[in-house]
Amino acid sequence: MPNNIKVVIAGPRGRMGREAVKMVTDHDGMQLVSVIDYKNVGQSLDQVEGFGYLPESISIYNDLDICFNETSPDVLIDLTTPETGYRHTKTALLNNVRPVVGTTGFTSSQLDELTNLAEERNIGVIIAPNFAIGAVLMMKFSQMAAKYFEDVEIIEMHHDQKLDAPSGTAIKTAQMIRENRTSKKQGHPAEEETLEGARGADLDGIKIHSVRLPGLIAHQQVLFGSGGQLLTIRHDSNDRASFMSGVSICVETVMNLNTLVYGLENILD
Amino acid sequence: MPNNIKVVIAGPRGRMGREAVKMVTDHDGMQLVSVIDYKNVGQSLDQVEGFGYLPESISIYNDLDICFNETSPDVLIDLTTPETGYRHTKTALLNNVRPVVGTTGFTSSQLDELTNLAEERNIGVIIAPNFAIGAVLMMKFSQMAAKYFEDVEIIEMHHDQKLDAPSGTAIKTAQMIRENRTSKKQGHPAEEETLEGARGADLDGIKIHSVRLPGLIAHQQVLFGSGGQLLTIRHDSNDRASFMSGVSICVETVMNLNTLVYGLENILD
Amino acid sequence: MPNNIKVVIAGPRGRMGREAVKMVTDHDGMQLVSVIDYKNVGQSLDQVEGFGYLPESISIYNDLDICFNETSPDVLIDLTTPETGYRHTKTALLNNVRPVVGTTGFTSSQLDELTNLAEERNIGVIIAPNFAIGAVLMMKFSQMAAKYFEDVEIIEMHHDQKLDAPSGTAIKTAQMIRENRTSKKQGHPAEEETLEGARGADLDGIKIHSVRLPGLIAHQQVLFGSGGQLLTIRHDSNDRASFMSGVSICVETVMNLNTLVYGLENILD
Amino acid sequence: MPNNIKVVIAGPRGRMGREAVKMVTDHDGMQLVSVIDYKNVGQSLDQVEGFGYLPESISIYNDLDICFNETSPDVLIDLTTPETGYRHTKTALLNNVRPVVGTTGFTSSQLDELTNLAEERNIGVIIAPNFAIGAVLMMKFSQMAAKYFEDVEIIEMHHDQKLDAPSGTAIKTAQMIRENRTSKKQGHPAEEETLEGARGADLDGIKIHSVRLPGLIAHQQVLFGSGGQLLTIRHDSNDRASFMSGVSICVETVMNLNTLVYGLENILD
Repeated sequence: MPNNIKVVIAGPRGRMGREAVKMVTDHDGMQLVSVIDYKNVGQSLDQVEGFGYLPESISIYNDLDICFNETSPDVLIDLTTPETGYRHTKTALLNNVRPVVGTTGFTSSQLDELTNLAEERNIGVIIAPNFAIGAVLMMKFSQMAAKYFEDVEIIEMHHDQKLDAPSGTAIKTAQMIRENRTSKKQGHPAEEETLEGARGADLDGIKIHSVRLPGLIAHQQVLFGSGGQLLTIRHDSNDRASFMSGVSICVETVMNLNTLVYGLENILD
Repeated sequence: MPNNIKVVIAGPRGRMGREAVKMVTDHDGMQLVSVIDYKNVGQSLDQVEGFGYLPESISIYNDLDICFNETSPDVLIDLTTPETGYRHTKTALLNNVRPVVGTTGFTSSQLDELTNLAEERNIGVIIAPNFAIGAVLMMKFSQMAAKYFEDVEIIEMHHDQKLDAPSGTAIKTAQMIRENRTSKKQGHPAEEETLEGARGADLDGIKIHSVRLPGLIAHQQVLFGSGGQLLTIRHDSNDRASFMSGVSICVETVMNLNTLVYGLENILD
Repeated sequence: MPNNIKVVIAGPRGRMGREAVKMVTDHDGMQLVSVIDYKNVGQSLDQVEGFGYLPESISIYNDLDICFNETSPDVLIDLTTPETGYRHTKTALLNNVRPVVGTTGFTSSQLDELTNLAEERNIGVIIAPNFAIGAVLMMKFSQMAAKYFEDVEIIEMHHDQKLDAPSGTAIKTAQMIRENRTSKKQGHPAEEETLEGARGADLDGIKIHSVRLPGLIAHQQVLFGSGGQLLTIRHDSNDRASFMSGVSICVETVMNLNTLVYGLENILD
Repeated sequence: MPNNIKVVIAGPRGRMGREAVKMVTDHDGMQLVSVIDYKNVGQSLDQVEGFGYLPESISIYNDLDICFNETSPDVLIDLTTPETGYRHTKTALLNNVRPVVGTTGFTSSQLDELTNLAEERNIGVIIAPNFAIGAVLMMKFSQMAAKYFEDVEIIEMHHDQKLDAPSGTAIKTAQMIRENRTSKKQGHPAEEETLEGARGADLDGIKIHSVRLPGLIAHQQVLFGSGGQLLTIRHDSNDRASFMSGVSICVETVMNLNTLVYGLENILD
């Protein structure tokens, strides 16, 4: 790992992008060498609204090849859209820049193509739908615990502006647990709901309960029970800043990879 | 309040009864003077299985009048069935013995009759469906909090041998909260369940979630949310012993009452 | 209570003040008629930075007498400093405007004087060191529960930038509990700390534990235990907005008072 | 793995032993072929007090060689004392019976000797100081999480009859976390305790808080924080039965080992 990883960020003005600019700038082992944006091209990022805190000028590029050529980044953090992200990732690999991509919408043929390209060039790519390392560990530990506890229920709790229930993370967690447990329907076989819905949603027998209240932000607990004991794994998220430790780990890890890795859980050990 | 309250217990061999015998025997301010049982009449309780620990002989009676006459109790703790309990309560009042009754099945005409009788005799009766003081405080505090928080959800958690969902305590809690809040349906008006049941049961807009796992015993949390804050009131019960502090408070309180009080929540302040 | 309470806010540019302007503006039963500030006098608040969202012009005054005379408020919300707050409160009472004051620094002779003045004028004043209604209820319920549970410990958890431990709220809670419990030292009389400090701080036998971690905001739980059961009262605060429901309740309540009330806990029932 | 593992239990009348007899008897893949005890030798276990539920006679032996010769067990579950356990383990290995030992007091030279013996005989031994699989997973996950979260505090909570604080499990957890984190003192460098002990015990900068209340049994939570998020791993234990899933996993696993493994955490993956 080089002492100082040179980083370019695509999508600096988005909510995640702004956090990423701050994280890289503050990080002792990283250096922000440029950003990619379709706006303000040719200007310096510290003159863009909200970036006045930057201590030095950071060039804004639109053309990736020129950007890579002039600023020689090691890693591209891409926080744009799936379509742009795919195009950026490909161009980066062709320029021997290692991509860390926070996007969920790639097709499997796109993933195959990028994997091949990464292996041809012998460099790493990380594509991570969820950078919240605490949430990813919660899911990973839940999957591990499912080997030893066949009984599990999930309670996820969010602010009451959330429209869908259960949350995507709860469903993903249940799917990961399912891979490691024998199918089983929780609760007594003869149990009865005197008020419909009391026992929650059912994903292959795993019960999921969704709480919605003002004052909540984003929380999930996974409860495993067996005779005489309970194991609970809980994640509370209250700020987008929580994603940045995940991004930081990806930037460091991608330097030592020579293939594509999908999902933060696959680089944590 | 007399220094030493003389107590008779009806139903000493039941699970609650056994705890009550132990509680009264251990209590500095109480004295167990006799027990009422249809078995082992005329014997002493310390010779009955499981009561060998008693330091002195306690007479077992079947006939209440004789028992009251011979042992002059101040209070009757009745832990029998609704039918027997009703009969015992009436006889106790007629003998100026103050009943503390742990039974839920009285009819409202029975309650009216007993109230009149208590007021005629100018002595107290307490009838308590739930002696777990922590659970009663949880319900009472929830009702109070509902005046200031219009958003509330309930999560109750029990062992997976429980057949009904939600629990009786959860329903009772929601009913008590409802008395103090404007009717409101929790969650975003446009929320959607992508898996049916995720948002739980609905009691007048209050959501109730029932978790069932081995390793759980009996737990409930009531969550109140408003902008930027959450207030949670939680009760965990793991042993029948938890009822005894409630029984003990009732015995002390009934000495100073001159009417019938229904429900532990009405003697707590 | 008038349909529409006319409110003036002193200190609108502070952090609490900004939330209060928003709360009153959004509230169906209140109307913001003016603000008091030493800056921007004579201008309209909607032209001050951060208030562009206001739908109409709100006059900024420096002189309270003129402000009260020209805009006839029912209630003054004062979110300034102790010294200014005291002066404002007095002037408001003399003008029959009911003060709601969020300040902790009044001396007892000042409080006496303001109480007398309020009773002379036959109008209400509320002075509240803590407007977070959830925190106030947590303390109030804890004090109530202490009558029935002699065993209690407090765990408070805050972000790791907090310098003092335990928190002021934890100490206040322990003091309120102490009023309702017989002095007792928690834990086994023969307990030993193999690592010093494990059993926490001690306030008259009540143990207080202070957790400090990044990712935490401001949380406290009060745990009451007795044989076989646990009662937990918990408050989580994640935003200054949490104070506003308390301010709102005070504004409504002060309309019906004719004396001074100190502390939100004394107007909640 | 044979369809039916033949098991002998040493120490059947102890509290753990009684649970183990029940577990093996109820287990579809195991068969209890004999027990080892210094009492009731030559009798059948179903005639010993508390074992009347056993459906068939189980011989009680004192001499291990005879027992192994006559009943041909695959696995010895040893729940005796360190001294006896060491002797039993050695004899078992010499008879090609695989030991699962729940004892903490072996010396390192004893462990070395047993490891050599196991490898010579090419069969497995498991020695597990803690069979509570949930507690072991909590420690293992905590150690893993420590790689990604440098900030951690531990709260352990036990009944108030416990004499030592912090608990052994809390200390073990902190030691395991320490192996995976850079040494760091939790909290703000300038933090101050206004009440001594508030910030808990300190193990290489990791803070440990010990709560003691009646109504608690045995609980621990490990809290990891970083900007904007919190990851909590919690274990609640309320019954000795919780150890049996660990024993069961060990019996199955030891069949496939050919060396000595110390600690349940080293056979979980």
